[in-house]
Amino acid sequence: MTETLTDRRARLMGPNVPTFYRNPVHIVRGEGVWLWDKDGKRYLDCYNNVPHVGHCHPAVVKAIADQAAILNTHTRYHHDLVLDYIEALTARLGHDISQCIMTCTGSEANDIALRMAQAVTGKIGIIATDNTYHGNTTATSALSSRRPPIGGYPAHVRLVPAPDSLRSPDPDGSIFAGHIKAAIEDLNASGIGFSGMMLCPAFANEGIPSVAPGFFAKAEAVIREAGGLILCDEVQPGFGRMGSHFWGHEWLGLTPDVVTCGKPMANGHPAAAVLARPDVMAAFRNAFGYFNTFGGNPVSAAACLATLKVIDDEGLQENAAKTSAYVMDRLRALRHPLLAEVRGVGLFFGAEFVLDENNTPATAFVEDLVEVMVAKGFILNRIGRAGNTLKIRPPLPFGIEHADLLVDALTEALATTKVPA
Amino acid sequence: MTETLTDRRARLMGPNVPTFYRNPVHIVRGEGVWLWDKDGKRYLDCYNNVPHVGHCHPAVVKAIADQAAILNTHTRYHHDLVLDYIEALTARLGHDISQCIMTCTGSEANDIALRMAQAVTGKIGIIATDNTYHGNTTATSALSSRRPPIGGYPAHVRLVPAPDSLRSPDPDGSIFAGHIKAAIEDLNASGIGFSGMMLCPAFANEGIPSVAPGFFAKAEAVIREAGGLILCDEVQPGFGRMGSHFWGHEWLGLTPDVVTCGKPMANGHPAAAVLARPDVMAAFRNAFGYFNTFGGNPVSAAACLATLKVIDDEGLQENAAKTSAYVMDRLRALRHPLLAEVRGVGLFFGAEFVLDENNTPATAFVEDLVEVMVAKGFILNRIGRAGNTLKIRPPLPFGIEHADLLVDALTEALATTKVPA
Repeated sequence: MTETLTDRRARLMGPNVPTFYRNPVHIVRGEGVWLWDKDGKRYLDCYNNVPHVGHCHPAVVKAIADQAAILNTHTRYHHDLVLDYIEALTARLGHDISQCIMTCTGSEANDIALRMAQAVTGKIGIIATDNTYHGNTTATSALSSRRPPIGGYPAHVRLVPAPDSLRSPDPDGSIFAGHIKAAIEDLNASGIGFSGMMLCPAFANEGIPSVAPGFFAKAEAVIREAGGLILCDEVQPGFGRMGSHFWGHEWLGLTPDVVTCGKPMANGHPAAAVLARPDVMAAFRNAFGYFNTFGGNPVSAAACLATLKVIDDEGLQENAAKTSAYVMDRLRALRHPLLAEVRGVGLFFGAEFVLDENNTPATAFVEDLVEVMVAKGFILNRIGRAGNTLKIRPPLPFGIEHADLLVDALTEALATTKVPA
Repeated sequence: MTETLTDRRARLMGPNVPTFYRNPVHIVRGEGVWLWDKDGKRYLDCYNNVPHVGHCHPAVVKAIADQAAILNTHTRYHHDLVLDYIEALTARLGHDISQCIMTCTGSEANDIALRMAQAVTGKIGIIATDNTYHGNTTATSALSSRRPPIGGYPAHVRLVPAPDSLRSPDPDGSIFAGHIKAAIEDLNASGIGFSGMMLCPAFANEGIPSVAPGFFAKAEAVIREAGGLILCDEVQPGFGRMGSHFWGHEWLGLTPDVVTCGKPMANGHPAAAVLARPDVMAAFRNAFGYFNTFGGNPVSAAACLATLKVIDDEGLQENAAKTSAYVMDRLRALRHPLLAEVRGVGLFFGAEFVLDENNTPATAFVEDLVEVMVAKGFILNRIGRAGNTLKIRPPLPFGIEHADLLVDALTEALATTKVPA
């Protein structure tokens, strides 16, 4: 008897290890926006944001291979590459954000950002939305609502209702700002105090609700009034995905105190960063002797530099803008009895399906739809509180021709996926 | 005016960013046990444990370059390499430890290990030594005593006096076990409860005190009696460094519930792991939906597999054993008025210098000694509570000929470094 890969995973990784799809795909090769499984079946990658400039981009692969053969050590010695990269990256940021700590994962970056807010304010209370994800460390996972932390939610975390453009429209963000104000008051009343709010400016894990630039203005005023910091998690929206802007916070129009980056930064090589103003950095650096062995090593820095250069050289931000508009036009033209809302910004797209006028989530239908699409050779997934929103978030080289393949297939899948009675 | 690298670092990274040495070295190339700085000066690397099988080992570089060109994605899809690696790694472990979570850093691994102890026991109290380091996340940094966490030490952490073979000899570990017993009683009395103890079985950050196999037996009995887990941080001792054994805990003779690995695992590529028994893994996996985007990706798995293969193919554990014995013989033959104790196990060596019969640390002298050695082209450092112990921890290919170069230079340096009046 041959052990299946699923059984082998369970034996070696333990129970409850997440995979995508009812029949997990077994991918063995990638190139650009394409993936191939072990049987040679080709998939269009409409989902992965880690291979930001395309799977196995030769310029990034070469940068990694070349530097790995020359030197890979840590930042307790001097090296130019990490400084070259920080200089290039901070040049993309305004708001006096000019300093950086390199880490290996977005989780590590957000874990630091939380401590920066604590170091600046001397308080520990933190606010996030109630349908988000900012990382898997003990500290960052306390902000996730999917599953309570071991030992229960800590007293210093307040989760406010995530924006939901379908069920509770809030065009000027005043409802959202009100929730934040109430959470701050509660933190202060409890004696914990308020250090800041962490948010993804695209609300990517919240299901990409339709919010417009300016949505966060009232919330920002409330946070500033209370002396809190704004910690902008750019792990998903950053690096050109928004199309119109390089960063999510630029698009939304808010002023971050701290910006964190992760997944797309080195096209899959484990690299991430925390960027901050010098005063914020100094508060953290003086309170905490932070050092990250692998963070900012020469190979990671080379991979980051190469990824940034490809974004520019290949005009990938512009491509994201162009493709975004095209995909949105085509998605808006879709017709289906359960399709309640099509949303998108840059190369983030959501299509929410509901069962009735009460917007009861059509979770099982979207689950089936995803499986049909995967069978057709399209890698995508679902998101949102009830998992009833189709989530499309392709690598940046995703073009018009790929968009046509995707939406044509989706049109067919919508016509054939069984609608609940 | 040209900005110095030190100034450029401060401008881009902020204040209080640690570098080694008064005049930080600017390393640009590495090969085997050798490093070269920007002026072409060659250094013998007697310190770095990250380039475990030697800087830029061609087999590891090739594995990274080859796999990066084929596919680099995450473990929500099936892939063989990560399973091949976990199978190979768990085959090196006893004590029914057969399952693994791949992460990117030892900090992430230890952050999980702490939650595993909590998930198994339902308690949160944790014990470590008072001169240790287990990581830089919010949760793991609470175990470090070098600088208090922002917001102060949390109530659930108890730090027990680290073994100190020079100042408080404790050959059978009964004093150490007594401290642990008192800490457990204190955690229980305070209502916090006891989840486990995290330790490096070589006590590497504690200054590599002279402890012998069996030292931890009494402590282990105390911990077992109290229902706690033993979380073995193998980031430094693991992967053959001990010479006589592949793991530190094998050498010390203790039974871990959880083993964590980091730095040396992929020879500098950011990879780390948490290994546990199935019951411990299940308790964590069922309490917490852990996923690490970069952890166990195909490139990291390929780098890990290659590193493990080189350790075996080149007999590096055996080399560590042989070199260890030789270095210890030569270090023991050193004579210097301030040299109080020479210690070592595997390719960890310490030489502690004191000013007087009260064992007053000769910190300034060792600081000078390190600078003299670096000027001579030898990369090493200092460790211990007062930084008065010379720390030598070379990559595993470090051989007899390198040991001779090192100890000859150290003999000269001891003769020329100014002794305080």
